[in-house]
Amino acid sequence: MAFARLQEKIDALKNPTVVGLDPDLAHIPGDILDKHISHLGETLEAAALAVVEFNTGLIDALCDIVPAVKPQSAYYEALGPYGNLALSKTCEYAKMKGMYVILDGKRNDIGSTAAAYSAAYLGTVKVGNAEHMPYNIDALTVNAYLGSDGIKPFIEDAVKYDKAILALVKTSNPSAGELQDKMVARQGDGSQTLYTAVGDLIEKISIDTKDKFGYTCVGAVVGATYPEESRILRERLKHTFFLVPGYGAQGGSAADVANAFDKDGRGAIVNSSRAIIAAWKKQSGDYTAAAREEAIKMRDELRKVLKKST
Amino acid sequence: MAFARLQEKIDALKNPTVVGLDPDLAHIPGDILDKHISHLGETLEAAALAVVEFNTGLIDALCDIVPAVKPQSAYYEALGPYGNLALSKTCEYAKMKGMYVILDGKRNDIGSTAAAYSAAYLGTVKVGNAEHMPYNIDALTVNAYLGSDGIKPFIEDAVKYDKAILALVKTSNPSAGELQDKMVARQGDGSQTLYTAVGDLIEKISIDTKDKFGYTCVGAVVGATYPEESRILRERLKHTFFLVPGYGAQGGSAADVANAFDKDGRGAIVNSSRAIIAAWKKQSGDYTAAAREEAIKMRDELRKVLKKST
Repeated sequence: MAFARLQEKIDALKNPTVVGLDPDLAHIPGDILDKHISHLGETLEAAALAVVEFNTGLIDALCDIVPAVKPQSAYYEALGPYGNLALSKTCEYAKMKGMYVILDGKRNDIGSTAAAYSAAYLGTVKVGNAEHMPYNIDALTVNAYLGSDGIKPFIEDAVKYDKAILALVKTSNPSAGELQDKMVARQGDGSQTLYTAVGDLIEKISIDTKDKFGYTCVGAVVGATYPEESRILRERLKHTFFLVPGYGAQGGSAADVANAFDKDGRGAIVNSSRAIIAAWKKQSGDYTAAAREEAIKMRDELRKVLKKST
Repeated sequence: MAFARLQEKIDALKNPTVVGLDPDLAHIPGDILDKHISHLGETLEAAALAVVEFNTGLIDALCDIVPAVKPQSAYYEALGPYGNLALSKTCEYAKMKGMYVILDGKRNDIGSTAAAYSAAYLGTVKVGNAEHMPYNIDALTVNAYLGSDGIKPFIEDAVKYDKAILALVKTSNPSAGELQDKMVARQGDGSQTLYTAVGDLIEKISIDTKDKFGYTCVGAVVGATYPEESRILRERLKHTFFLVPGYGAQGGSAADVANAFDKDGRGAIVNSSRAIIAAWKKQSGDYTAAAREEAIKMRDELRKVLKKST
């Protein structure tokens, strides 16, 4: 239920890391890309096949030490429909290897359209009498700007199919604060930041969906680059699981992410993308070995920090 | 530049309507779906082919009276990668028939990832030395919750490739106000609603991209269901083109949308989806004839209201 399956995988591997599969073509070793181009030319199809090969190599190298992967939809969509095929195959392969799959799509829409997104990624789609699961993933990131009726269709499917969503609360980018840090009037009295208002909203509308660890099926995206905001949110949202981007390449350190975890070291997972999947650029040897080495380094850094803080 | 190509099409047809291509399978006449199922079984592929046939029929029936279509990405993604192929073919066909294509994807992400979305939908993607355009569209809807550095990559491509984006400002759904209507502190003094703050932000960061009609390349999504908010935004954002959803099935009337237009009757386009594409359910005869009849009715209603208000 909700995030329990993910927390159990994290506990088993003692590693709260999710590896971002953001296959910018510049991150893929040239020989992989060249091989597919030699068969299919400089086409989007060749690029998509290179992405699948790159990702399956990473998944093989990481699946026994990292509990989860997070494909970033943008890099797949950039290859057109073949890219979506590559996304589908990547998700399938990661699931087959026992990993928890979070699709970073930041989807958002109203009522019936939100339901269509939910069917695509969390639920099922009926054609005639046949029921299909268009993508085999565990969780999807969403954007809550449209309010609760844009989130509720996802909650329904999350409960029905044992899946989860993660809403943007405080993002990791430099301009995150332009809107998210604005002080907004609180119902009744006083004021609060917009990002805490979003946090309050998502915990409130999902509070009936708590899993055995106490987390609801609506998690929060909370950037590693804002450790103070992370501390505020962690204290405030006792039943919300956090996805923490911004570690590594974006500047967040292991110490910065400590605030995102509960006192028992649970309730969050930290994402790293480029630093792991493109580690081969800074090291000699195979890209999979480089990724594994970097993932072990990150795991050990996180373990140290979590040990200190508990 | 920016929205000029769209405004010119609207002027030529005297019709500020965009038809939402939201191919929920329930909106597709049974005989179309059955034909493809008889060849390919009850598969997502059969459904995707039915969607393409349905859409091309609608485009043929509407392209001489309606300037633009707005495919809603969710309904295509719900069919998996075949759905993206259907989306791609739909966009190509609408472009070939001279229509302006707005993809309703509400995409949003940070820096380099926003750039990947932008490359997918507004720009180009390089594989080796070959440059590809993954989707052939004119404009993309986006969500601005991440602030300006999530929007700027789209602006760069919009300027470079003569395309546009439309940011969610005040959406048409019942819970839109939960976050969007919150009063936020204004820099300097006083307070304003969050939706006007978003509106101010998008006009400010795109002000250098004005077209010959005075509109920047970042439009605003402003729901027909909130005519008063629409009036406030129209007065405030003199250089922002509006996409107005919520007409028809969602409850917005022709009088409700009048506020979204400038004094000269320009600067906005009104979306209708279900009421047009599923008009066949309420009428006898072919679905294309029903859609055309309904689109003419909407055009004439809008013309009447715009004539009155100018």
